[in-house]
Amino acid sequence: MMLKTHSCGQLSKAEVGQTVTLNGWVQRRRDLGGVLFIDLRDRTGIVQIVFNPDFSGDALAIADRARNEFVLAVKGQVVERDAETVNTNIATGEIEIRVTEIEIMNAAKTPPFPIEDGVEVDESIRLKYRYLDLRRPEMQKTLLLRSKSAKIFRDFLDGEGFIDVETPILTKSSPEGARDYLVPSRVHQGEFFALPQSPQIFKQLLMVSGVERYYQIARCFRDEDLRADRQPEFTQVDIETSFLSQDQLLDLMEQLAVKLFKETVGADLPVPFQRITYADAMNKYGSDKPDLRFGLEMEDITDIVSSSDVKVFASVAAGGGVVKALNAKGCASWSRKELDDLQPFAARYGGKGLAWVTVKEGEWRGPIVKFFKPEEIAALTERLAVEEGDLLLFSADKKKVVADVLGNLRLKIGKDLGLINESEFKFAWVVDFPLLGWDEEAKRYVAEHHPFTRPHDEDVHLFDTDPGQIRAQAYDLVLNGYEVGGGSMRIYKREVQEQMFKALGFSQELAYEKFGYLMDAFEYGTPPHGGIAFGFDRLVMLLAGRTNLRETIAFPKTASATDLLCDAPSEVELSQLQQLHIRTVPKPVKQPETTGAQN
Amino acid sequence: MMLKTHSCGQLSKAEVGQTVTLNGWVQRRRDLGGVLFIDLRDRTGIVQIVFNPDFSGDALAIADRARNEFVLAVKGQVVERDAETVNTNIATGEIEIRVTEIEIMNAAKTPPFPIEDGVEVDESIRLKYRYLDLRRPEMQKTLLLRSKSAKIFRDFLDGEGFIDVETPILTKSSPEGARDYLVPSRVHQGEFFALPQSPQIFKQLLMVSGVERYYQIARCFRDEDLRADRQPEFTQVDIETSFLSQDQLLDLMEQLAVKLFKETVGADLPVPFQRITYADAMNKYGSDKPDLRFGLEMEDITDIVSSSDVKVFASVAAGGGVVKALNAKGCASWSRKELDDLQPFAARYGGKGLAWVTVKEGEWRGPIVKFFKPEEIAALTERLAVEEGDLLLFSADKKKVVADVLGNLRLKIGKDLGLINESEFKFAWVVDFPLLGWDEEAKRYVAEHHPFTRPHDEDVHLFDTDPGQIRAQAYDLVLNGYEVGGGSMRIYKREVQEQMFKALGFSQELAYEKFGYLMDAFEYGTPPHGGIAFGFDRLVMLLAGRTNLRETIAFPKTASATDLLCDAPSEVELSQLQQLHIRTVPKPVKQPETTGAQN
Repeated sequence: MMLKTHSCGQLSKAEVGQTVTLNGWVQRRRDLGGVLFIDLRDRTGIVQIVFNPDFSGDALAIADRARNEFVLAVKGQVVERDAETVNTNIATGEIEIRVTEIEIMNAAKTPPFPIEDGVEVDESIRLKYRYLDLRRPEMQKTLLLRSKSAKIFRDFLDGEGFIDVETPILTKSSPEGARDYLVPSRVHQGEFFALPQSPQIFKQLLMVSGVERYYQIARCFRDEDLRADRQPEFTQVDIETSFLSQDQLLDLMEQLAVKLFKETVGADLPVPFQRITYADAMNKYGSDKPDLRFGLEMEDITDIVSSSDVKVFASVAAGGGVVKALNAKGCASWSRKELDDLQPFAARYGGKGLAWVTVKEGEWRGPIVKFFKPEEIAALTERLAVEEGDLLLFSADKKKVVADVLGNLRLKIGKDLGLINESEFKFAWVVDFPLLGWDEEAKRYVAEHHPFTRPHDEDVHLFDTDPGQIRAQAYDLVLNGYEVGGGSMRIYKREVQEQMFKALGFSQELAYEKFGYLMDAFEYGTPPHGGIAFGFDRLVMLLAGRTNLRETIAFPKTASATDLLCDAPSEVELSQLQQLHIRTVPKPVKQPETTGAQN
Repeated sequence: MMLKTHSCGQLSKAEVGQTVTLNGWVQRRRDLGGVLFIDLRDRTGIVQIVFNPDFSGDALAIADRARNEFVLAVKGQVVERDAETVNTNIATGEIEIRVTEIEIMNAAKTPPFPIEDGVEVDESIRLKYRYLDLRRPEMQKTLLLRSKSAKIFRDFLDGEGFIDVETPILTKSSPEGARDYLVPSRVHQGEFFALPQSPQIFKQLLMVSGVERYYQIARCFRDEDLRADRQPEFTQVDIETSFLSQDQLLDLMEQLAVKLFKETVGADLPVPFQRITYADAMNKYGSDKPDLRFGLEMEDITDIVSSSDVKVFASVAAGGGVVKALNAKGCASWSRKELDDLQPFAARYGGKGLAWVTVKEGEWRGPIVKFFKPEEIAALTERLAVEEGDLLLFSADKKKVVADVLGNLRLKIGKDLGLINESEFKFAWVVDFPLLGWDEEAKRYVAEHHPFTRPHDEDVHLFDTDPGQIRAQAYDLVLNGYEVGGGSMRIYKREVQEQMFKALGFSQELAYEKFGYLMDAFEYGTPPHGGIAFGFDRLVMLLAGRTNLRETIAFPKTASATDLLCDAPSEVELSQLQQLHIRTVPKPVKQPETTGAQN
């Protein structure tokens, strides 16, 4: 067997004159009247190899049998190309290999799609033939980027004294959160393991264990109905620390992000990252993961229009709702159709409508303009910095609806108007999330993050008076409108934990039932601790400039949680189920139109 | 909150005079008549902190409330101890901290066992309170060692161009090998994912993808009846390469082992590692994972005793069995009881008995001696290098039984006689495993490693004549009698694969049914490839000088696959099972004596 001495893509003029052995795949062959040129590809790139009766001997005839994706071993001399045949499109374009020996290591059927970037083929075909899809240079690059990113995380955390600890995959079903994947136990009839949604409890136990700085690049599992940006199994960089303040932790994580982005995409991230409270983010951007690459902030104008003759404004204001506006600079020229399309857009986010005003030739125009009083126009002009050519967009509704409608409209306009610098990485910390949210159905408060999230010290007194106003020491890291990380400081004082459970309507007994072994552990000397988890798949996606999580995962699943490559899930032998003491429920004889996903 | 400026165990005379803040746990307190000494512990070690009315003010009274395992924050000055109070048992024994401020960060109940090394407590208690067990210094050290070992693996492999690729945990049930853990699909009624026993198929697919050098520190799962050295989930360092010969791969892996052992335990491993064929290992040591820290090789004496008057020897030889002997040097002085105990020992490994001869005062003694002919004694004396004081031990049986009996006896004697240097790390490669083994029940050959293992080129012709004699390009890495890694070169040529399937009695159709998508992939240009997997838990165990895998895993499971800390597996809500379209089989009303493990 002729084994490689060099890699295809790394040859250059430095090797001219050397005899090298290469192994790789046939990217393309061209027969120029008895002289055969093959582009040979390996993971490092492509090099041209040449077969000529003058120097190739028998190798030419053998090479002639090679087709695309055959695996070749070739031996030959590196020679400089003539000036006129230099190919500046490839890194090795100044040289070629004059082959003297060849071995066809393996043949290949014609692949179902070309092995090249930007291939136009249905994703399901790419997933079924993932081993071919991954040969494409852009996929190889993404695999490398992912591996390198993991290494950067590890090197940084290792350097900062973090210990990589593996936590169990076969663990206990937790009563909260998303649906668990379950694993029947063979040894313990009728009992089940669950796959972890995150290592949350174990990492807190490691803090009780005195590990002080823990990390793990951890596989997590959620059996949710999938969206484009969700996978049933996903990877997070899971981090927990003791004896650090929130600011110390966030500073450290910023250094980590800076290193990651510098060493992968060469970006220089300015630090410190902007820190914006949850309240401000919602008020200005209508989102807790704002895209801060552009402005276009929304303004609250409830006070100005609370007694307006625009009836919907006044009534919403009177009913405790809010009226907000966006000033889309220079958009007064939008067509009637564009303006009409705003109504279904608003409806998609739960809004009843959108009012608009254009400012043309010094005049406010639009259906509602006639209802504005002059002093309202004056006040709005000042607050919204209205100028000639502006388009004003108004939403009046409950606070959350206005945030959704105008927040999404802001993103749409930002994109449509090209306000976004696509090459920018704009990080921010969103801090001070609410500790508790009111659950209308259950008529009680629920934990926004989880029941062990630490409230701000200065807000603890609100447990007795206004729990909904308590701010949590919880934070998300957002990047270009995506949440790429999130975490919190955890409660470590018993009296605070008891107040928290009381606010959630849990008795001590119920709390113990739900979180027994963690509660036990907390009795034995728990240090102040807190942590964060980064969504690794999503971070790699953003680093790679992709918009689909599946592009960053070697063997992903489809939106219906199927692995098209190995055909999983699949039916299993009855004997396997018997050993596990379970039976499947027979499918209904006539399948309804809807799939199992809606059950 | 007073947060640490330094770690307890890292303070030294260099910090004398500095004011430091420490966070840690109370290891021990001593009240010397109004002066309070506390040993404060964090993950780096212990330091003595002192409370004295002269400098501690209110802090003394607060400190007086602290008990073992309370979490403290203290601020104070580092001072040098008087010569007579220096404690040479701890690294910080030359200094102490004069505390001026204290905060009790958290209280602790009295732990169920002392937080110190060598604690005598039932392992089930340690596992239930794992978060306390992990506070013990020896456990902290093992966690650190494990983290560091993973880092060394990664750094080495990264430096050699290996790409870290994550493969799925939710995958397809494979029809071969150990039992799979299954995961019912909610979306696809009646179908199941399986947890991977190893990433074997995915890593081979990555080679088809052109990744060329892959690694992953991968979680693997086997639902087997557990032994002391097995865990239902375990970690392997999984490696696969293309375009390397077996020797190139083994050389590279040796470099990796050398680096690992140098940088963790400071051992200098001599390279190259001994390479011993499977046949030699079985012949000399009766084991494919021989402990090579001592000799005591067994000798085949079948030829000498084939027509002996020792009837059992002659009849075994005539029946195609073997007769082998160990010479236990200087053991002629064993007591009658010790010699008698050999019989049940042999029986435990399937032997019908063990014959023995002692050599005392120039004379051979023992029940069988009278049957030996003088020329047999002469030949045995030469082959076994018999000397005064020796004990000769004979086993006659089928080859495998003799190997088991004498192989285990060799280990026992080696240990009993202190022939083993416990501080030595003796590596070896066992190579040339048989490709196929004969399955008596199925009356066919089965793959010893797996059906994609590559035979030696020069043995391929034996497929037609004597498949059982084909040697595989398969290898194990053994260390001190443990298998710590294993792998093989894989078949990549279609014609060899077809010969393999034919030898296994598979039709092309059956092969496709069993290994469909991998077979498909192999059609599209498969490079020559091969790999290895290291048992990470076991390697860390050996590095840590432990004998129990559970000591190396943060949150292990018991021998009955139970997590005593979080009480998994456990019963789940009926609604969860309904969503997964499964039912549990009711337990029999009267449980039989045996546990579910035997079902």
